[in-house]
Order: sequence, then C-alpha cells, then structure tokens
Amino acid sequence: MKILILNGPNLNLLGKREPGIYGTDSFDDYFLKLCNSFPVVQLEYYQSNVEGELINKLHEAGFSYDGIVFNPGGYTHTSVALGDAVAAIATPVIEVHISNVMAREEYRHVSFIAPKAIGTIGGLGLHGYHLAIEALVHLKKS
Amino acid sequence: MKILILNGPNLNLLGKREPGIYGTDSFDDYFLKLCNSFPVVQLEYYQSNVEGELINKLHEAGFSYDGIVFNPGGYTHTSVALGDAVAAIATPVIEVHISNVMAREEYRHVSFIAPKAIGTIGGLGLHGYHLAIEALVHLKKS
Amino acid sequence: MKILILNGPNLNLLGKREPGIYGTDSFDDYFLKLCNSFPVVQLEYYQSNVEGELINKLHEAGFSYDGIVFNPGGYTHTSVALGDAVAAIATPVIEVHISNVMAREEYRHVSFIAPKAIGTIGGLGLHGYHLAIEALVHLKKS
Amino acid sequence: MKILILNGPNLNLLGKREPGIYGTDSFDDYFLKLCNSFPVVQLEYYQSNVEGELINKLHEAGFSYDGIVFNPGGYTHTSVALGDAVAAIATPVIEVHISNVMAREEYRHVSFIAPKAIGTIGGLGLHGYHLAIEALVHLKKS
Amino acid sequence: MKILILNGPNLNLLGKREPGIYGTDSFDDYFLKLCNSFPVVQLEYYQSNVEGELINKLHEAGFSYDGIVFNPGGYTHTSVALGDAVAAIATPVIEVHISNVMAREEYRHVSFIAPKAIGTIGGLGLHGYHLAIEALVHLKKS
Amino acid sequence: MKILILNGPNLNLLGKREPGIYGTDSFDDYFLKLCNSFPVVQLEYYQSNVEGELINKLHEAGFSYDGIVFNPGGYTHTSVALGDAVAAIATPVIEVHISNVMAREEYRHVSFIAPKAIGTIGGLGLHGYHLAIEALVHLKKS
Amino acid sequence: MKILILNGPNLNLLGKREPGIYGTDSFDDYFLKLCNSFPVVQLEYYQSNVEGELINKLHEAGFSYDGIVFNPGGYTHTSVALGDAVAAIATPVIEVHISNVMAREEYRHVSFIAPKAIGTIGGLGLHGYHLAIEALVHLKKS
Amino acid sequence: MKILILNGPNLNLLGKREPGIYGTDSFDDYFLKLCNSFPVVQLEYYQSNVEGELINKLHEAGFSYDGIVFNPGGYTHTSVALGDAVAAIATPVIEVHISNVMAREEYRHVSFIAPKAIGTIGGLGLHGYHLAIEALVHLKKS
Amino acid sequence: MKILILNGPNLNLLGKREPGIYGTDSFDDYFLKLCNSFPVVQLEYYQSNVEGELINKLHEAGFSYDGIVFNPGGYTHTSVALGDAVAAIATPVIEVHISNVMAREEYRHVSFIAPKAIGTIGGLGLHGYHLAIEALVHLKKS
Amino acid sequence: MKILILNGPNLNLLGKREPGIYGTDSFDDYFLKLCNSFPVVQLEYYQSNVEGELINKLHEAGFSYDGIVFNPGGYTHTSVALGDAVAAIATPVIEVHISNVMAREEYRHVSFIAPKAIGTIGGLGLHGYHLAIEALVHLKKS
Amino acid sequence: MKILILNGPNLNLLGKREPGIYGTDSFDDYFLKLCNSFPVVQLEYYQSNVEGELINKLHEAGFSYDGIVFNPGGYTHTSVALGDAVAAIATPVIEVHISNVMAREEYRHVSFIAPKAIGTIGGLGLHGYHLAIEALVHLKKS
Amino acid sequence: MKILILNGPNLNLLGKREPGIYGTDSFDDYFLKLCNSFPVVQLEYYQSNVEGELINKLHEAGFSYDGIVFNPGGYTHTSVALGDAVAAIATPVIEVHISNVMAREEYRHVSFIAPKAIGTIGGLGLHGYHLAIEALVHLKKS
Repeated sequence: MKILILNGPNLNLLGKREPGIYGTDSFDDYFLKLCNSFPVVQLEYYQSNVEGELINKLHEAGFSYDGIVFNPGGYTHTSVALGDAVAAIATPVIEVHISNVMAREEYRHVSFIAPKAIGTIGGLGLHGYHLAIEALVHLKKS
Repeated sequence: MKILILNGPNLNLLGKREPGIYGTDSFDDYFLKLCNSFPVVQLEYYQSNVEGELINKLHEAGFSYDGIVFNPGGYTHTSVALGDAVAAIATPVIEVHISNVMAREEYRHVSFIAPKAIGTIGGLGLHGYHLAIEALVHLKKS
Repeated sequence: MKILILNGPNLNLLGKREPGIYGTDSFDDYFLKLCNSFPVVQLEYYQSNVEGELINKLHEAGFSYDGIVFNPGGYTHTSVALGDAVAAIATPVIEVHISNVMAREEYRHVSFIAPKAIGTIGGLGLHGYHLAIEALVHLKKS
Repeated sequence: MKILILNGPNLNLLGKREPGIYGTDSFDDYFLKLCNSFPVVQLEYYQSNVEGELINKLHEAGFSYDGIVFNPGGYTHTSVALGDAVAAIATPVIEVHISNVMAREEYRHVSFIAPKAIGTIGGLGLHGYHLAIEALVHLKKS
Repeated sequence: MKILILNGPNLNLLGKREPGIYGTDSFDDYFLKLCNSFPVVQLEYYQSNVEGELINKLHEAGFSYDGIVFNPGGYTHTSVALGDAVAAIATPVIEVHISNVMAREEYRHVSFIAPKAIGTIGGLGLHGYHLAIEALVHLKKS
Repeated sequence: MKILILNGPNLNLLGKREPGIYGTDSFDDYFLKLCNSFPVVQLEYYQSNVEGELINKLHEAGFSYDGIVFNPGGYTHTSVALGDAVAAIATPVIEVHISNVMAREEYRHVSFIAPKAIGTIGGLGLHGYHLAIEALVHLKKS
Repeated sequence: MKILILNGPNLNLLGKREPGIYGTDSFDDYFLKLCNSFPVVQLEYYQSNVEGELINKLHEAGFSYDGIVFNPGGYTHTSVALGDAVAAIATPVIEVHISNVMAREEYRHVSFIAPKAIGTIGGLGLHGYHLAIEALVHLKKS
Repeated sequence: MKILILNGPNLNLLGKREPGIYGTDSFDDYFLKLCNSFPVVQLEYYQSNVEGELINKLHEAGFSYDGIVFNPGGYTHTSVALGDAVAAIATPVIEVHISNVMAREEYRHVSFIAPKAIGTIGGLGLHGYHLAIEALVHLKKS
Repeated sequence: MKILILNGPNLNLLGKREPGIYGTDSFDDYFLKLCNSFPVVQLEYYQSNVEGELINKLHEAGFSYDGIVFNPGGYTHTSVALGDAVAAIATPVIEVHISNVMAREEYRHVSFIAPKAIGTIGGLGLHGYHLAIEALVHLKKS
Repeated sequence: MKILILNGPNLNLLGKREPGIYGTDSFDDYFLKLCNSFPVVQLEYYQSNVEGELINKLHEAGFSYDGIVFNPGGYTHTSVALGDAVAAIATPVIEVHISNVMAREEYRHVSFIAPKAIGTIGGLGLHGYHLAIEALVHLKKS
Repeated sequence: MKILILNGPNLNLLGKREPGIYGTDSFDDYFLKLCNSFPVVQLEYYQSNVEGELINKLHEAGFSYDGIVFNPGGYTHTSVALGDAVAAIATPVIEVHISNVMAREEYRHVSFIAPKAIGTIGGLGLHGYHLAIEALVHLKKS
Repeated sequence: MKILILNGPNLNLLGKREPGIYGTDSFDDYFLKLCNSFPVVQLEYYQSNVEGELINKLHEAGFSYDGIVFNPGGYTHTSVALGDAVAAIATPVIEVHISNVMAREEYRHVSFIAPKAIGTIGGLGLHGYHLAIEALVHLKKS
C-alpha cells in the first residue's frame, strides 16, 4: 500500500519557526516516526511552496497511489486549481490541517480543497497526519 | 479514561434511513464495535434531538470526562448556544461529521462548534468516531 | 389515510393572542372543524415549542403516516435540523404558514424546511391547513 | 363569481416540453378540467410571455373580478413592475408555482409578487391552481 | 421645441387607483394642464406597460426631440435594457418619480436609468414633470 | 408586583465556570441578593438550556406578570421563535446581557429578541439584572 | 415666504475649483441671481463644512421657515445625524445635488437625507436650486 | 440546416448609434454578409426590444431549428424568463455579445442565459456571430 | 464623585419636537430631576451637535471624571472617531439610547461606540440616564 | 503569423482523465489537428501548472506574437497576477474555456483574465481553440 | 517650500494616552524634531477633532502649499467629505497612519481619503511623517 | 546591515512596458541608484513571477536579513500563503506599491500581506522603495 504525504507552503519551516511552541522537531523528524508507526505502508513525503508543483505531484501520484494526505497550507483558502487537481485524480485525498483553521481568521474558514477531498481532519496537531493514514488504510480494507 | 460520544439531531435514524446507502446497522450496533475496539476506554453514548439536552449533557460530562466526541448534526450550523457550551466546559471536544459537509449546501460550511472545539474530523464515515477517540487517547498521553 | 398536523412554536397561543385579529377560537377548536371536513381522513394534532420534540414527532410519524402538514413557526427560518428531519423521513410534508411571511421581516423570507418539503402554502390563514390536507389527499390518489 | 387564471412566461409550453415528466396535457386541457371542477365559478384563462401584457391583464381584471390566480413564471423573481400592479389593483391575487421554487436555484427564492399577493401556493403541481381557486372561493364566503 | 413625456408601468392607473390619495384626475387631465403651462413647447405623451415598447419609443424620439421626461415606474430598478436605451440616444433624458422612492422599499433605491440620464427629480408629486420640462427648456437655452 | 427572571443556555454554569473571573457565587446566590434588594417585588427565577422551555415559560408568565428580565444567552442571536414569543405576550420584557456582546464576535451583534423587547441592558455584569428590575418598577409607576 | 438655502462641505469652493468646468462664478454670485429670480421670496444662504453646524442651522430655521433647499455634499452618504435633523424639524426640505451622484462612485448612491426629505433633485447643475425653490413655492400654494 | 440569429434590445440601433465607433453598417447589412459566408446554411434574422417577443421567437424556433445564435443585450443580466425559455427548448443556443461585457459595469458580469446555453462568445465584435454559426455547424457534424 | 452626561446631535430638540410624544420637558428640566435624585454625585451636562466637540469633551473629562453617560445620537452608527475617543480615555463610559434602536432602521443596529464602552442601555426612555448613573456609582463601589 | 496556445493547470490531464467523457485524445493530439487546420499560421503550444510560469510565457510571447489563445483553467477565477500580465503585454489575448463555466460552481463565474483579454469563448469544447485562432486571424486582417 | 502637517481626531492625545506604549512625547515635541530634520522646509502643524475644520484647513492650504501630510485618524474610514476636499484642492496630499490599520478592525481597512491622495504610508510609527515630508520634497524636485 | 528587495509578478516588465509612462529605466537600473543612495547598506534584489519562489526567498532571507522591502504585485490581493510566510519569518517586512492601489479596482483594496507586515508605502512611485529602506534603517537604529 502506497501513500503520499503532501505538504504545501510554509510547512517546511516546522521546527525552525517558534520552536517554543511547535517544538524543535522538523517535519522530516516526524515523518520518520510516521514510517515507524506504519511499517506495512509505503510512505512518501513531498513538500513545496509552489502551487503548480503541488498540482504536478498530485497528478503524478494520483493514478497509482492508494491515498494522499494533503495539507495545502495557505493555498487551501485560495486555490481553485488545487481543488480541480484533487477532483481530477483517482486516488482518494484527505485534507489535514495542524491548527484549527476554524478558530482563526475568517478567510481561513473557506476551503477549495475540502469539497473535492473525501474528508478533512483539522486542529489535532501533527497527529492529524497519523489519523489520516489510518483512515486511508481503513478505507482500503473496507 | 472516560469518553462521551454525543450525537445530535436525526442521528438516531441511522440504520433506518436509506439502508441501501447507510447500511442496516444502527448507531447502537456501531457503538458496540467501538467499545470492543477500545477496551481500556470507558465509553458512554448519548443522543438527543433537543438542542438544550445536548447542552445539558455537555455540562454534565464537561468537568469530569477526559474527552467528548460530538456530532452536532444540523445544530452545527446554527447553534451559538452549543458553541458557548463547548467553550464553557473543561473537557476537550472533537467535532465529528459522518458526511463531508464542505461538499454539501453552502449553509453547512459554517460551524459554530468548530472554533470552540479542539479539532474536527469530517467526511470519513462512522470511522470518524473511531479516529476521534484515538485522538483523545493520544491527547491524554501527550 | 393518516395525516399529522404539526405546529411549531407560539402556535399554542392562537385564540389567546390578539383575539381581535385572530379570533377567539383556539387551534383545538379549528382542529375539530378540520376533522369534520375530512371524515374519511384520520387526523392527528401535535404542537410543541421545543425544536427537538418536533423532530421526534417527524421521526415517529414519518415512516407510517400518509402525509404531514407542518407549520414550523419561527423555526422555519433558522432550523437546519428540522429541514434535515423532513428530508430524512418517507412521508410527504407540506409547509403551511398562516400569515404571508414574504410580506414580513426579511429574515422570514428564508425557509430551511421548504426545499425539503414537497410544497408550501402561505398567507391563506387557517384555511391553509385545509388546503394542505386536500393536497395530500389528492397526492395519495394520483 | 369571476376568477382569472393568469400564466406568465414559458407556461404555454406545457404538454410540449419534456412530456415524459410533465405529461402530454397542455394547460388548455387542464383548464377544461378546472372549469368542470368549479361549475359555479366563471373562470377565464390568459397567458402571455410579455411582462407588460400581464400588467395590462391585471389592470383589466383587477377592479371587477373576484380573484386572480397568478403564476408569474420567471418574472416572479425579477419584476418590480408586476408586484406594483398586484398592489395597485383591488382584486385579491394568489401566487401559484407548479414546481417547488425553494428547492431550485437561489435566485428563485425571491419573489417581488408574493409580498403584494394575499398568499402563495408552491410545489403542488397543477393541483395548486385548483387549491388557489378554492381559497378564493373560501375567501369570498368568509 | 419638442419634448416627450414617457410613462412606464402602472402609471396609466392614475386617477383610478386610490383616488382619496392620488386625486381623481388621470394623467391625461394633468397632461392638458402641462400643455397650457408650456404653450411654446410641443409636448407629446406616451405610456406603456411593456418595457420593449418604452425602448421603441425612446429610439423613435431619441434622435429628433429636444428632451424626454421619463418616469420608468417599476422598471427603474430592474431594467438594464432601458438604461442602455437612454445611453444610446442623443436626446437628453430626465428621470422623474412622483413618490420619494428613497423612502420606500430598499430595492427601489437602485436605478439603472439614473446614471444614464442627465438628472433625476423625485418625491415632488406630479409637479416633478413640470419642473423637468422647465429644466429641459433651461438646458436648451444655456 | 411580580417579575420573572429568565435565564437562557449556559447561564446555569455561573460560579462553576472560570471562578477566577466570574467569582464563586452561583446565580442562585445572586438571586437571593436581588430578592433582598427588592423586598416589595415578588421575584421568580427560572433557567433552562432548552429554547422551547424558555418559550413555554414566556407564555406562562407573559399574561399575568408585571415584567420579565430575560437573558437569552446564545439564543439571542439565532432564535426567531423566542423573538416571536416576546412579541406575542402582554408582559413587558427587558433583555439583559452580563458581558458586552457588542465587543465580542460579530455574530453576537445581532439580536432577534431586542426589537421585540422594550429595551436592552448589556455589559454591566450581574448588576444589569438589578437595573432591569428597577426599570420595570419605574415603568409600572409611570 | 422664507426659504433657506443650505450648502454642505466643499461647496464654498465653487468658482475657485476647476473654473474651466464650473465657471468663475462663486455660489454667492449665483445666489444674487436666485434672489432676482424670486423677488417675492425671502431667501437666506448659509454654508458650512462642519456637519454639526449644518444641524444647528436646520434646527434654527426648521420651525419657522417655509422651506429648506439642502445640498449636504459629501455628508449625504454618511450622516445619520443630518437625516435625523431633517426628520425632526417641521419645515419641508428638498435635497439638491449639482452633479448626477448616481453616475459617480457607488458609495454616492446612498443618501441618509433623501428618505427624510420630501424630494430630491440631482444632476441638473446650479439650476437645481432654482427648481427646488419653485417646488417649495408650489408646495406652499397647494 | 436552419439557424436563427436572435437579437435583443437596442441592437436595432447598430449603424445609427455612434457611427464613428460602430461603423455605418446596420445589422441588416452585416446579415447579408453572413448569408454569403454560409451559403449552405439557411439563416433567419429576428430582432425585438420586447423581452416576451424574444421568448415567443425562442419557442417558435426552438423545436425545429438546428441552432440559435442569441444576443440578449441588456436582458442578459436581468431575465430569468429568457433563461427559462432557453432551457425549455430543444435547439442548442449560443450566447453572443459584441462587446466584452466582463470589462464593463459589474452588473453586466452576471448572465441568466449563459448557464442554460451551450456556450458563450463575447468581446469579438460582429465576428462573434460568424464564429457562433461555425460552432453550430461544427456541433451538427460531430 | 463626578459624572458627565454627554448628549450628541438632535438631543437639544427634546421638549420642542413632537411634545405629544416626548412631553414638553426639555433635557435641562430632566437634568434638574437627575441632580435631585443623586445628591451626592456631582453631575455635569453637555450637549453638542458637532462630532468633534463631543470628542473634545470626552478628552476633557476622560482623565479626571468617574464616569460618562454618553448618548451619541446619530453619530453612534457612523463615527469611528468617537469610538476611538471612548477607547482612548481612562474614564468608563456607558452608552445610552432613549429609544430602542434595535427596533428601528437597520443602519441603527450598528454601534461604533458600544464595543469601546463598558456597557449599553437602550429603549428605556429618559430613565436610561438614571440607570446609567446608578451603574457607574455601583461600579465605583465595587 | 505566430499564435501561442497557452494552457493552465490540470489541462495536461486531457485524454487521461475520465476518457469515457473527454475521449482518449490528449491535447497534444488535438494540437496536431489544429496545426493541420491552420497551415499558414505558426502555432506554438505551452502548458504549465505553475501560475508564475504562465506569466513568464505571456511576457515572452507578449511582445512579438500576433495572438495568444489562453485557457487559464482554475487560475481564471483567482489570479490577479495573470490578469495583470495579460494587461501588460501588447499581443491580443482570447480567453478560452472548454466547459461552460457559467453553468458550474458560483466561484467559477468570476474571471480576472476576461476584463483584460479582448474576448472570451466558453462551453464549446476543444473547438473553442479553433474558433479563437480564427478570431485572431480575422482580427489581424481587419 | 511650504508643507502642512494636518492631524485629525484623537491625535492630540499623543504623549498623554498610554505613555508606556506611545512614550511621553507629545506631537508638539515630535514636531520640533521634524522642523530640525528639514531646516529648508517651512513646516506648519494643525490639529482638530472637528471634521469640518479639517476641511477648512485643507481648503486654506490647498491652493498655495507645496504639500500636505494628512493623518485623518478615525475620519479616514467614514468621511466622504474629507475625500472630496482632498480631491478638490491643488496641493498634493499624502495620507499617513501611525499604526498599521490593515492589522486592526475590518472597518479600518477602508479609506475614503487614500483614492484621492497621491499615496499612503502606514504602520511605520511617527517616522511615517518624516518619510512623507521626504516624499513631498522628492516630488517637488522631480 | 543587509536588506532584501523582493519584487513579485510583472515587475520584471518595468522599462519595457509603456515606456512613455514608466520611463525606459528597468528596475535593475533603478536598483543601481538605490545602492548608490545607501552605500552602507548591503542591498540584494530578487524578482520572480512564481508565488512559491517568493515564499522560498522570504524563508531564505527571513531569519538573517535586517529587513525586506516587498512589492508582492498582483499576489498582494490573493495570496494567503505569502501572508503566512511574512508572518512566519523573523525579519521585518515593509510592503511597497508603486501605484496607488486604493485608487484602482476594488479587488486591489484588499491585502493579505499588509496585516502581517510592519507597514505599507503606496502610490509614491519607485521612490517608495527608497523610503522603505530608510524606514528599515531607522527601525534598526531605534
């Protein structure tokens, strides 16, 4: 079983930005833990700040992988094109947000990705990625 | 560890309404499976169609339980009072939706509960309840 | 043939509130006249000011009755949950308003029930209930 | 007793348009049935696709007829002038829609006619005309 | 000097509708008074309830008359096409309203004609027509 | 003189919720003080989290009491039905809020109760109830 | 007969600002012409850039003058207080604008004065003042 | 193959209105050129300023012609009834605009016709009609 | 203890404007009664129709008085500058309205002062000033 | 004559995505047909999912090519920057959409490109590219 | 070279209000520093809380000074009249804000002055005045 | 001291686009002048049309540079992701616009960058970059 974890803009700063709050672990560190938690799943990780490269990656994985865990960062609220990409591919996508976007600025309450994804997990920290993988594994089995 | 599963309006119809789609299992059936999946967690289940009874239950559990998994159904989009109740209690609440509300009518894209909850899980079917319990267990440990 | 007449909030005040305008007949008085007008229809009447009890009643009648005449009162304009209940049940529902809501405050021009009901009758006074029953009888025959 | 049935734009296509759904009866056929159902009422039928001709007809009938059953079609949602005409005349007007406009596009949820009419009947098919005549007869008697 | 007075929908009812308020004079009566007040101006009067016939008349007069006094009635607030016609012709147009539209329903506060006319006179009763003619005479002289 | 103090959702948590801020006195404690402050007024206190029970109470008291002090809590901003109930009864109602709702989330700036009440007192803490009773006493005298 | 001409902000610049367009006559020059045109009317002229001084002047003249011609300039679109002043006084007020405000920025399409005035004249240049006086004279006679 | 070219309000002024910009050719002149360009297509041309006559024409041609090229002029942005007519007929309709409506006033960015037509061509001058016919010919062949 | 009563635009007309409704007492008369009711409080009264003078007065009193009772009249709904002044000073401010602004025009439902004041009293007539002083006295004591 | 065909996000999936609907031809296949249809035009094709690369390409071609046929895909509705690029270059641009965007989600009814392009063709399938090239050829000749 | 520094409402409180944050220097102190920094520029300083006096000052300086640095305070977001004054005068105006208004309440994101000024400087503290003067000096030289 | 000047989309066209207006100097030419004006500041210049590359550059410079002068071009009004990047880094950012965006299309009045930057300079031409550097130098010293 193959799952892609796809991170959008500014998520590469994890571990560097406000370490007092977010900790000193980078997402790469966390990714290793995820791999250990799911030994039978083949996990791949990709991050880009470029909207179009995220689309490229969705296209690339979207016809052969078993699932995509996608945190579109700030593009969540503005990108019709990313929503179209999620709708165009065959692989199921789960949208994940580390913070609770519904408790932040009003322009973050809108998502162009969510209506095209199968579901959304938000506000549960990095553990949201863990839950999303579990959901994809569950989906595959059912 | 004690967790309350709280279901809002119309969720009592599960298993009865459109069984071709939702299956013939009632939520009570599903609740038994959940209990088996989390043998070390003390799970309680409550459902009401009355907004104020949901508030009562949140108050009752909200100062002693370790977590609440809350599917507010149609009240999600209209109830300031339920959002206030979630904000007022000490127990962490995770909002769960069976369907992907972001892919439905526009008035379902607003939630008065989500900004007061710690997080949201939507669109992942009944399995969303499972993931929410797991998230609360994880939260307790961390 | 069994039809439920379901009245929402404040409709219990009929006959008591501004009798100069609404007359001194209570809805119970009017209900007797309705029963006389439709001797072959088994009519039941239920009123509640509690949103959730209206949902309960819709669930209770909604899989066995032949029709429901529903005046949701002030909940018409605010209740997603009642709209969901109407959509979830099998029995056809006709929304009735005594006054012409379109000629009143702008927030009364929206209905969460109407799109889930089969039709709406408004502004025709108590006689609207009579017409709705007739429509349900006609529907049954066709 | 004299009642005018007034149909607005596109209602002349009835029976010709999508006969699988709407049947092969034209409104003229249905009008005959109506006449039979109300032998003591003098019914007149007029249809036009021209907004101004509908206004002319409202003026013509609006000071001598006992009632007008008006389906303004697509003009319902855009015509201040028709609403003004209904308000200006002495004859009571009931707005009728064959389909449930509240369940269709959002721009159909607004009516410039309804606040000036005495009431509205919608979503109950052609039978809505029948009910509207009955309501006018009832109104006359009361 | 030639001036057209052009009246839109429902203005033909003047004198017939609510005579207690509007008086028993029809617009034709008033038109005679206007002709007497402006003996050196050639006045023409035209009324229609049909939007397209008002456009036709604007086209007909709009390249040879010295001025048009236009009361578009209910079309004021909805007709892009009438606004386009006013913009397309060479003759200056003054918009007149008998009542103070700014003190009525909110949808009457918008005018598609006004931005294309040279000016507007509203709320001054039938005398507004008199003032508009005077303004056109003044414009011609200056 | 008889006055009802009616509290809506979540106000039963007073004294239990964030005692550092709101103090450790419950509303029951405060109610005793109020009774002492107004010895000649017969005060009654009722609280419910159920919207419909608040409507029931308004109906019950609304034709015999001299005044109602009503804090509708979160229902203030969403309940057309409660506003209708206040409008339907004969007893004057004053809306009270402990906090300054105008300084909080934008959805709290709207009230469906206020336009039907005689007045509003907000932001003055528990003392607002005291002032509202005084206002009702003053009203009775004038 | 006494009429006040009241000019709001920036209208003192007339004759100084863009003389190629507005001419080199100040409003004082124009006022002299107006006085000559209406020899039997006692005209007074007042201008201020201060909103509150305009209110003061309305109060001062508003219980003894026969009419007020008011050009509120930029305050038209923002001043609830000026609208309240016009509503509070006994003297009839006509709102005048030199330019066609409906053809300018959208925020100029709103007027807080117009619904409280008896009428509005706009877009007809300085001649609008002349017409407004004439309308007030006509009003007095009728 | 039979195609109707249908022009809405004000398009009859072509050649007469601002000839420096639009040229001195009327649409009739251009229609001749179109006929020459498509010798094997039977072209018909109809123009009206009356909304209802455009509906009549759509009904008349809409069940036998192979295509309709429709420029609804100012009715584009306001006519639900014309949109309904396009939806009701069997013949495919292409909406054409001579100017680029998206670069003009904001109220021209909305079209009630476009969602019911198969496609839209705008901003390409009179040549847009040529392209629309070509598109209909292509559609017929495919 | 020193308290300023500050009245905004048009409140100087009290007693002069519609005496049948508002009575023939001016605010000065009422102020004398207030002074008598609070013999131990040093009350000062100031009224202006000029927004900037109200700001001046707030600045003047705002660092030495114990409280300000402020009725901003029509400026309530439009003045960011007055809201800023209330926020900038040290003295607590209570906003008072004589009428129930929430039951009037929609533009009166917004207040730029309220979020910066400690509280609001509205709809309770002149007695609202009395209650506001009492609230400030209570605040001082607590 | 040189024309660039520029495709935005997700258009590279053509032929791969839902072949039952869109066919199994890729855009490259279609591009060959276009080249054959316009033997005297030098056509170039470029596609990118990256917004900035589309801007780069517009800059590169925009001062030397004779025309650009641009399908901005999902960026149509969100990209001010692409609209700016179209406005900045000298080459005329025609916006093309394969589907009828006006019949899809409301957020697709807005275009930041269209007001800066010379025209738009939508809903006519791949043939829209053909028509756009023809329009550019026609434009060049005229 | 002559430059006016014009400060609007509440800016007179600088140095007095929250000295821990804003420092204990008044604007007069800062003005002295500015004069020292620009020895060859003749600087004048004026502050008023009265909107109309700011207009008066703009008129007074606006036809002879070389530049105006204008901080309109709270009037920025509400004053059409001040925007008109800036547009009417010949002297270039730069709008300055001490704080970053875009990071504050949403009603502060709108400016009626900015579109009429040549530019805006915001969020750079008192130093913004320094930069604005420099910009005006630069403008004069270029 | 190190400062990055970061330019967004279409700003590479400077000097090439409309040289009659913008001059024939490219931004590279202007950058040389800036370097000469600030000999003690180490200036770096970077431009990209790709949103994600601008984010990359902000990340790269944002933890070591002393300041960033950022002109986000068209991304200003649409990019949540760029605003997030500005908020995430430690280096202070000043937003600069060459033109006065507040005097252009309404969609340019919104900025997702400004609330996260320390300040904004707009409408002052290329000199705005000069002023922004000066402000950063001033900030460093204070």
